[in-house]
Amino acid sequence: MTSRTQTTFAPPVMQARRWLADVTFSEDTPLINVSQAAPVDPPPEALRDAMAEALKDPETHLYGPVLGLPALRDALAARWSAQYKGRVKPENVAITSGCNQAFAATIAAICSDGDTVILPTPWYFNHKMWLDMSGVTAVALKTGPDLIPDVQAAKALITDTTRAIALVSPNNPGGVEYPAETLQAFFDLARAHGIKLIVDEIYRDFDSRDGPPHGLVSDPNWGDTLIQLYSFSKAYRLTGHRVGAIFASPDLLSEVEKFLDTVAICPSQLGQKAALWGVEHLDDWLDRQRREILDRRAAIHDNMPLLTAKGWRLMGCGAYFAYLEHPFAASSADLAPKLVSAIGVLALPGTMFTPADDSSGERQIRIAFANVDRAEITTLFARLASLDWPLATPTSPA
Amino acid sequence: MTSRTQTTFAPPVMQARRWLADVTFSEDTPLINVSQAAPVDPPPEALRDAMAEALKDPETHLYGPVLGLPALRDALAARWSAQYKGRVKPENVAITSGCNQAFAATIAAICSDGDTVILPTPWYFNHKMWLDMSGVTAVALKTGPDLIPDVQAAKALITDTTRAIALVSPNNPGGVEYPAETLQAFFDLARAHGIKLIVDEIYRDFDSRDGPPHGLVSDPNWGDTLIQLYSFSKAYRLTGHRVGAIFASPDLLSEVEKFLDTVAICPSQLGQKAALWGVEHLDDWLDRQRREILDRRAAIHDNMPLLTAKGWRLMGCGAYFAYLEHPFAASSADLAPKLVSAIGVLALPGTMFTPADDSSGERQIRIAFANVDRAEITTLFARLASLDWPLATPTSPA
Repeated sequence: MTSRTQTTFAPPVMQARRWLADVTFSEDTPLINVSQAAPVDPPPEALRDAMAEALKDPETHLYGPVLGLPALRDALAARWSAQYKGRVKPENVAITSGCNQAFAATIAAICSDGDTVILPTPWYFNHKMWLDMSGVTAVALKTGPDLIPDVQAAKALITDTTRAIALVSPNNPGGVEYPAETLQAFFDLARAHGIKLIVDEIYRDFDSRDGPPHGLVSDPNWGDTLIQLYSFSKAYRLTGHRVGAIFASPDLLSEVEKFLDTVAICPSQLGQKAALWGVEHLDDWLDRQRREILDRRAAIHDNMPLLTAKGWRLMGCGAYFAYLEHPFAASSADLAPKLVSAIGVLALPGTMFTPADDSSGERQIRIAFANVDRAEITTLFARLASLDWPLATPTSPA
Repeated sequence: MTSRTQTTFAPPVMQARRWLADVTFSEDTPLINVSQAAPVDPPPEALRDAMAEALKDPETHLYGPVLGLPALRDALAARWSAQYKGRVKPENVAITSGCNQAFAATIAAICSDGDTVILPTPWYFNHKMWLDMSGVTAVALKTGPDLIPDVQAAKALITDTTRAIALVSPNNPGGVEYPAETLQAFFDLARAHGIKLIVDEIYRDFDSRDGPPHGLVSDPNWGDTLIQLYSFSKAYRLTGHRVGAIFASPDLLSEVEKFLDTVAICPSQLGQKAALWGVEHLDDWLDRQRREILDRRAAIHDNMPLLTAKGWRLMGCGAYFAYLEHPFAASSADLAPKLVSAIGVLALPGTMFTPADDSSGERQIRIAFANVDRAEITTLFARLASLDWPLATPTSPA
C-alpha cells in the first residue's frame, strides 16, 4: 500500500525554504541566499520583446509536436554539431519541459522496476528522487576528495540490472568540471557493457574551458551509448517557461515520446519560441553571462584563504557551485538550518546530496554562487569565517 | 531489458496524423479533421493582451511554487466551492502542466507496481498509457450500449490490489455525461472499499446540465475519496501553455508535489497567470463558447437520421465528442485510415479506446466535433452517409 511517491523523500529545496520561516533579517545583515541554482533576474529585454511578439502568432497558443518545435530541434542540432564537433541531426533532439523532465523521460525510456542506475555521490537529489519514484535503484558511486568519479570503481558496480551511468558535468552539487578523458573513459565503459551513459550538461554554458568539454559526440555512433541532457533555464533565464532538451538516438527518442505525450503532451510553445530566439540572437549576451559567472568563481577562489585559515576546504568550484568541507563537529544537516539565524546565510547541507548510509555529506555544504556578485561573495565568506564552534553545535545534546 | 515505455503503445493521435501523409485534398472536399479534442483557435484577444502584460513582470520568467501560484489556487478553490456547492480550500488545489500530468501525478501518488486501477471502456488512451508506463494494471470495466459504467460491475472487479476507479465525465471518447447518481454510487463504492475515485472533469465547462454535475464535493469529507482533474486547455484555449489542476486532500497533494517537483518543477508561470486572468474575466466568454459547443452537439442529433438510415447508431454525444457505431463488417481500425482518402474525414477508430482483447471498439468511431461548425457537421454527415460498403472493406483480402 506504499505508493511510488511515498517511497520518495520530499523536495530538499522546499525543505530548506522553510528554515526561513521564523527568521527576520536586519538591513545590516540581509539574507544571502545561496541555496538554489536558478537565475533571479528575468531574461534580457530583447528576448522578452520577442516573446510578446510570439504571443501574436495563434500557433503559440496551440498544441505543438510532442518532441518539440521542428525549428528548435533544427537549431539545437546545428549548434550541437558545431560545438561538440560531431554529427547531431534534428531527429537526435527532443525538447522537454525542463531538464528534470529530460532525466525522467530518459529513465522511463531505458529502465523498468528492479533496474539500477549508477550515480556518483554527492548526487543531484532530483535524480535520486526520480529513480526512487520509478522503482529503479540508484547505486552510489562514491567520489574522493576531488569529486571526480573513478571509472574502475564504476566498472565494479555494473551488474546485469545496470541500465545506465548518469553523470552531471559541470557537476551539481560539486561544481567540478569532469575532464574530457574521464567522460571518454565512462563512455567506453558504458559502451563495452551495452548500457547508456547519461550526461546532464545543464551547466555547460558556464564551463570554464573553451571548446567542447568532451569528444564523445565526434564518435560517429555516439547515439548507441550517449544521452545528453540540457536546459534553457540557466542560459537565457527561462526557468518559469520550462524548456530543456534530450540528445539521443532517434530510436530512444521514440520511446521518450511516449512518456512526454502522457506527462506533458508538448513543452510550452512560447518557451520553445523564446529558446529558439535565444539560440539565434543571444550568443554574445550569453558569453557575457558566462564571463560574469567565471568571475564569481574566481571570487570564490580569491576569498577562500579566509576560510582555509579556519579549517574549511574547497572540494570543487565551477559553473554555479562551490562545494565546501566545513571544520565543525556538527553535521551539516544541523549546521545548515542554523546558518540562517546565526549569520544570515541559506545554503544546502551535503546530507541532501548523499545517501542515508554515507556520512561524508555531514562534512559538506553547497554554495550556489550564481546569484551573488563579487561583493556579496566577499561578505558571504566573511560571515562563514566568523562562524565559531558554539554556533555550529547541534541543539540536541551531543 | 524491457523499459517502462517499451511496454507502452505509441501515442494514437500521432499515429492517426500519419494517415494524412500521402493524401491530397481538393478544394471541393477539404479535410474534415475530427480526430483531436483541442481548440484550433487562439485564446480571446483580451487574454492575449493580458499575457503580453504579464511578460513585463520579472516573476513570470522565474520558477514558481511546485504546486502552483497561490493566487490561482485561491481562485480555483473559490470557484470550485461555489460551483460544486462544497468546501474546497486552496490547499486542496494543485496546478499541473495540463490534465494528462494531473492524472500521471495522481497515479504516482497513490499507486505502485502491481497495483490496479479500474477504467471504464472505451477508455481515454493516455490514461491507459500512463498506467502501463507505471507498472499499474488497468482493469477494464466494460460499458453497455449507453456507455455508462455500472457500479455493481465495478464492485465485482475490486480486489486488494485496487487503488482507484478513474472516470471521465463528460466522457472522452464516449461523449456521455455521467448522471449525478452514477457518480455518487461510484463515490460510495470507492469510499466503502477505501480506494480513491478519480474523476477527470476536463470537459466540465461544456456539460449540457446547468448547476453542479454531481454532489460529491458537498460531502464535508470528500477529500478522503475524491480526486478531481481539470484543465484550462479547453476552457480558455490555452493548450500550448499547459495548465491543469488536481483537487484532492492536502495529504495527497504533498505526495503529488514530489512527483511534480521531479517531472516539472513548476507549471508555466505565464500559463498560470493566463488561467487566473481567465477565471477572473472570461465567464461570459466561456458561457458563449459553451452555447456554441452545445449547438454543435444539437447539430449532431439533427443530422443523425441520415446516418441512422444507413445503419449507424449514436452511442453517446456531449462535450466535445460523438461516439458512433458504424454498420460495416470491416473493423474501425481498417475503416478509419480509409476515411481519409475515401471521403476526406480524419476520425479515430474505437479500437484506439478499447483493450486488445475487446472487439467492441471495432464497431465504433469517435467524432471530436468541437472544431467543426454546424455547416461542417452537415457536410461530415453527408460524407459519412455516402460511404458504401466496398470503400469500407480492408485492403488485405478478407
